[in-house]
Amino acid sequence: MTPADARLARLIGPVLPGLERMREVMERQVLETSRAVGDMTDHVARFRGKQLRGALVLLAGEATGNTTDEHPAIAAIVELIHLATLVHDDVLDGAAVRRRVACVNQRWDNQTAVLLGDFLYARAFALSTDLSSRLASRVLAEATRRVCVGEIEQAARRYDFELSQQVYEQIAGAKTATLYAAACELGARYPGGREELGLELRQFGWEIGLAFQIVDDCLDVVGDERVVGKSVGNDVEDGKITLPVLYAYRAADEVQQAAMRDIYTRPELERRIVRLREVCDLTRGVEFALARARELVAQAQQRLAGLEDGPHRRALHALGEFVLERNW
Amino acid sequence: MTPADARLARLIGPVLPGLERMREVMERQVLETSRAVGDMTDHVARFRGKQLRGALVLLAGEATGNTTDEHPAIAAIVELIHLATLVHDDVLDGAAVRRRVACVNQRWDNQTAVLLGDFLYARAFALSTDLSSRLASRVLAEATRRVCVGEIEQAARRYDFELSQQVYEQIAGAKTATLYAAACELGARYPGGREELGLELRQFGWEIGLAFQIVDDCLDVVGDERVVGKSVGNDVEDGKITLPVLYAYRAADEVQQAAMRDIYTRPELERRIVRLREVCDLTRGVEFALARARELVAQAQQRLAGLEDGPHRRALHALGEFVLERNW
Repeated sequence: MTPADARLARLIGPVLPGLERMREVMERQVLETSRAVGDMTDHVARFRGKQLRGALVLLAGEATGNTTDEHPAIAAIVELIHLATLVHDDVLDGAAVRRRVACVNQRWDNQTAVLLGDFLYARAFALSTDLSSRLASRVLAEATRRVCVGEIEQAARRYDFELSQQVYEQIAGAKTATLYAAACELGARYPGGREELGLELRQFGWEIGLAFQIVDDCLDVVGDERVVGKSVGNDVEDGKITLPVLYAYRAADEVQQAAMRDIYTRPELERRIVRLREVCDLTRGVEFALARARELVAQAQQRLAGLEDGPHRRALHALGEFVLERNW
Repeated sequence: MTPADARLARLIGPVLPGLERMREVMERQVLETSRAVGDMTDHVARFRGKQLRGALVLLAGEATGNTTDEHPAIAAIVELIHLATLVHDDVLDGAAVRRRVACVNQRWDNQTAVLLGDFLYARAFALSTDLSSRLASRVLAEATRRVCVGEIEQAARRYDFELSQQVYEQIAGAKTATLYAAACELGARYPGGREELGLELRQFGWEIGLAFQIVDDCLDVVGDERVVGKSVGNDVEDGKITLPVLYAYRAADEVQQAAMRDIYTRPELERRIVRLREVCDLTRGVEFALARARELVAQAQQRLAGLEDGPHRRALHALGEFVLERNW
């Protein structure tokens, strides 16, 4: 267990029983009589990861005094949707290593990864239609749509060095923060009512999620593969202009800018990230991006001021620090 | 307009106003402020196709005296789900031509096709959560799951000449007939109740859908590309053992069987379908498969006996003939 893992384990401690129930629900959902599906979902179980989104549903519920028997199921649905996006992402960007487990699309093929992702989405929606209130179905179907739109926008904006920070945040947020926001909103207001509190927690989730994505984008340009636990430099390979790169580009002179564009776009170029580090000041770009992430976390933490103090509120607060400090 | 198109147009005539409303709903659903998404959905509009599944919702509703203002929206959801599976199928089997429109994955790439399919699924589920009854969400989330399981099973059973006819029908049915069955069931019983009638129409949809898939599988081995409107021989390229091939294999002697297995599996072999036609009696396989399709249609048509006579019941009945006679 790394120090970051240990810190996260302490953070989610207050909702461990709920997380255990969430995992039981997830396991039931991916049980299939079909042997072929079973083989695949066995593998996906190893993707398990931090289950931060599921924990957010439970923490946001407890911290706002809103807990129901269905919260663990909602957490499971959120995690299944996240799992589906991960599986489909592996079709997308060909990341070679993800959490040190061979990707689905390397053990099987693109075809299987598409189908498995679809299966997980369908399972998640089927489960959500069994809940007593329709709020979860509605919020999560809409969140899933936004995630897709964010990914499509991101693909359309590849190689676009003229991207504004605002559009970067819209896209990075749609892609990642949407599900954090939905998790926190549902935790705080499922099965219904409590709109104002729901909106506040939704904003909290959005800000924490966006900060998480910004840190992720920083790790991809300056992180160490052995520490991060997945390959780095993928965004550069995929033509994605992330916040640290955007800032480094703006701070660069014309010669450097031309070199950066060339490194992103020249066909067949090897190890683009190493070259990029050589031609511009990525460290300053990362500093700028991390300052923005810290700002977002501070905003998010302020939103918790109105909640009653206790282990759950403190865990949500500490999650902000965790997002900023992970994996460096 | 081909004779088949004209026949279909006559068939769906009794539900034209509902289909018009269905199309309006679909257009609203794929409208997006995102330019990148708009570009893609414009293209998908050309996939429109026969919209048979949407028509089934409306026809099953009218034929059973069960019509609501929400039937056109349900028809739209069913069509959006079908569209999503088509878009993801293009990632899967690399079919070169589909309805004479360049595939999404050729105009864009696999990545975009995955995202667009996900977007369409999410739109469909979001729309279903806005309906007054949850029956549509439930039936369609479960149907989508079954479709995925069918596709995964099919991928796992590639090159398996020992497949039983029963397993072939389970897989072909899960993949195609599931959505026909869900369309007919929802038409007959949405917003709820009417379980028995729903089950009967569901069986009707299953049988018609399975017959449709069997005919499709026959067209892929003996059809004419110019008439069928999409490339043929894809199943052989993809290693799928379909009913006509299964029957031809069983009727073949050992030497022929070895030749068939070789044609399916030898790497780099060109135009497998042409060679397959040379080494075995595919015509007899097709005759056998079509006899089974006719049997399924006859069973399906008998299920309509209890319904009141009228244009909608007659259209459902005639749809059986249409499925058998299309595109030869």
